[in-house]
Amino acid sequence: GEVKKIAVIAGDGIGPEVVAEAEKVLKRTEELFGYRFETEHALFGGIAIDQKGTPLPQETLDVCQRADAVLLGAVGGPQWDNNPKELRPETGLLGIRKALGLFSNLRPAVVFDCLKDASTLKPEVLEGTDLMVVRELTGGIYFGEKFRRDTEHGQEAVDTCAYNVKEVERIVTQAFEIAQKRRKKLASVDKANVLETSRLWREVVNGIAPKYPDVELEHVLVDNCAMQLLRRPSSFDVIVTENMFGDILSDEAAMLTGSIGMLSSASLGEGSFGLYEPVHGSAPDIAGQNLANPIATILSVALMFRMTFGYADAADAIESAVAEVLNAGHRTSDIAVDKSQAIGTKEMGDLIVAAI
Amino acid sequence: GEVKKIAVIAGDGIGPEVVAEAEKVLKRTEELFGYRFETEHALFGGIAIDQKGTPLPQETLDVCQRADAVLLGAVGGPQWDNNPKELRPETGLLGIRKALGLFSNLRPAVVFDCLKDASTLKPEVLEGTDLMVVRELTGGIYFGEKFRRDTEHGQEAVDTCAYNVKEVERIVTQAFEIAQKRRKKLASVDKANVLETSRLWREVVNGIAPKYPDVELEHVLVDNCAMQLLRRPSSFDVIVTENMFGDILSDEAAMLTGSIGMLSSASLGEGSFGLYEPVHGSAPDIAGQNLANPIATILSVALMFRMTFGYADAADAIESAVAEVLNAGHRTSDIAVDKSQAIGTKEMGDLIVAAI
Ligand SMILES: CC(C)[C@H](C(=O)O)[C@@H](O)C(=O)O
Ligand SMILES: CC(C)[C@H](C(=O)O)[C@@H](O)C(=O)O
Repeated sequence: GEVKKIAVIAGDGIGPEVVAEAEKVLKRTEELFGYRFETEHALFGGIAIDQKGTPLPQETLDVCQRADAVLLGAVGGPQWDNNPKELRPETGLLGIRKALGLFSNLRPAVVFDCLKDASTLKPEVLEGTDLMVVRELTGGIYFGEKFRRDTEHGQEAVDTCAYNVKEVERIVTQAFEIAQKRRKKLASVDKANVLETSRLWREVVNGIAPKYPDVELEHVLVDNCAMQLLRRPSSFDVIVTENMFGDILSDEAAMLTGSIGMLSSASLGEGSFGLYEPVHGSAPDIAGQNLANPIATILSVALMFRMTFGYADAADAIESAVAEVLNAGHRTSDIAVDKSQAIGTKEMGDLIVAAI
Repeated sequence: GEVKKIAVIAGDGIGPEVVAEAEKVLKRTEELFGYRFETEHALFGGIAIDQKGTPLPQETLDVCQRADAVLLGAVGGPQWDNNPKELRPETGLLGIRKALGLFSNLRPAVVFDCLKDASTLKPEVLEGTDLMVVRELTGGIYFGEKFRRDTEHGQEAVDTCAYNVKEVERIVTQAFEIAQKRRKKLASVDKANVLETSRLWREVVNGIAPKYPDVELEHVLVDNCAMQLLRRPSSFDVIVTENMFGDILSDEAAMLTGSIGMLSSASLGEGSFGLYEPVHGSAPDIAGQNLANPIATILSVALMFRMTFGYADAADAIESAVAEVLNAGHRTSDIAVDKSQAIGTKEMGDLIVAAI
């Protein structure tokens, strides 16, 4: 078969450790399924600031642009938190999204059986929760004009939130497509009673809806959605929303599953290109100690296989292997009830590789 | 004593019913404590649209401006949802906030003992939760310039989010003052890794913090706050944030207490003037059926007594009366476990009046 090129960005904190386990999984699927991958490593985030003087070096963008998909560990850490804006890991994150045209961020929030009790929600409320937040990722207030000016009331800071019809159309269309392949329910979240961008958003959604008559659409105001996620999480299927609301709601949704350490995400552009990464952060406090849980990153590989490469067999195999290892009772310390029985990052990776 | 003027805005849906019970409470405290109130009713929201052609008639503003405080029931309903912007109840809400200079919205989120089980959170997680969201209410993206323009990608909508130093200073100072009178913890919520307004916000907070050395300050990113509210609600004391984030987080916080039908709120301006209202909405589905729970509105009166009038004795008496009636097992149907035993709006109001 064709060789698929994967740009591998380990990043900061626990990033390198979890990515190393995901690479073992890549290798193992090559052996078992005959797929062929070529990985190319690149510097990004804090480590790129330290070594190259910028969070997103041009070489890194080049590596990504030559690749069919990107696997990202995690970026950031306290040592860069007080840097000027252009020397902060987040600036690299926003830059890579824009440069690669990753307009859509898919954040599945599912409950892992073995982690049901880890949620702060009552198990009966959580029962059956399996939702996907589709977040617009390259528009809105994140990328609008920002500036300061002097006023009679001291300095004033300004952020601009803008959306055009095309930007809304492509993300909303994608959300309808995803909903159609799932439980056929779409909640479009906005603040149409206050924001002009939300009113445009809602108009576009209503314009597209007739093309998907089998998908049940509801419009939910963002404040109400923050509540309903808590009250009836299992009633949601796909939630589509703009960048800033998506940032907040996808994190809320992930946390309520109790499984945040196990969740993967995809950021997609036009075509099949995608960037895949765990939802959890760089966890600098446990970095380099073989304590991190590599499962979210390994599941990000499965998501890559499914969404970018169409390798459903290998994706299934990886997901089953993860389930098997968990069912056998193996836990890294973040998800272990009895921490003294916890295994390390490498051991978890090895067990999953062996189970594929 | 001096006569206090209260503007009473019943509004739409269940508004008139719950406000009627709160007025009984006002009357009873006059008799018992010797305070004197003069109430003046005004039209606002949907009913004002229907009767006066605008959600916020000038007479209503005049009534509020002559008053020492405003008691508001609830506004809105499906019959006005598709109106043009200037004929929508929300437009009145934004208008009254701006016209009365109500820059601060206080949203206490507490767990009522009798409602502990109503929350979707586990009781042990909720234990001890008692927080206050201080939301900036007259700035940010709610009130910035909004417009549409044509682009090569179809129409574009734009919202502008702006904050100046003075606006941030006054709300943050108030939040520090409130924290000082509570458990001395303040979480300032922003998105300083992305937004210029948040960076200004954080600078102002850090500039004020040294004046309150006894208040423990943390900066929390808004996405992380949405998660932490779920993970460790009881660890928060006061949360201060800008308008849009406050809209989302205050509703999330209210919902996680399970007590949303019982929560009151205050919107304050300079000086002691304030507008008081229940957190719940106009619930058009149960309007006019003597089914609504008047407790949140009655507790809004207690909040008014405490914050605007300094009548702590009467505020205490009202709050104790509510607790007593609940402890005796009386419930409106929204909070009743056995709905067949539920009492009506009027009966609940009468019991509380009798218990003061
Ligand atoms: C780090 C930050 C800029 C980023 C965002 O807000 O998009 C993060 O919170 C995320 O969700 O990926
Ligand atoms: C109705 C709406 C404009 C309003 C707001 O967003 O401020 C409401 O959600 C609130 O919180 O009072």
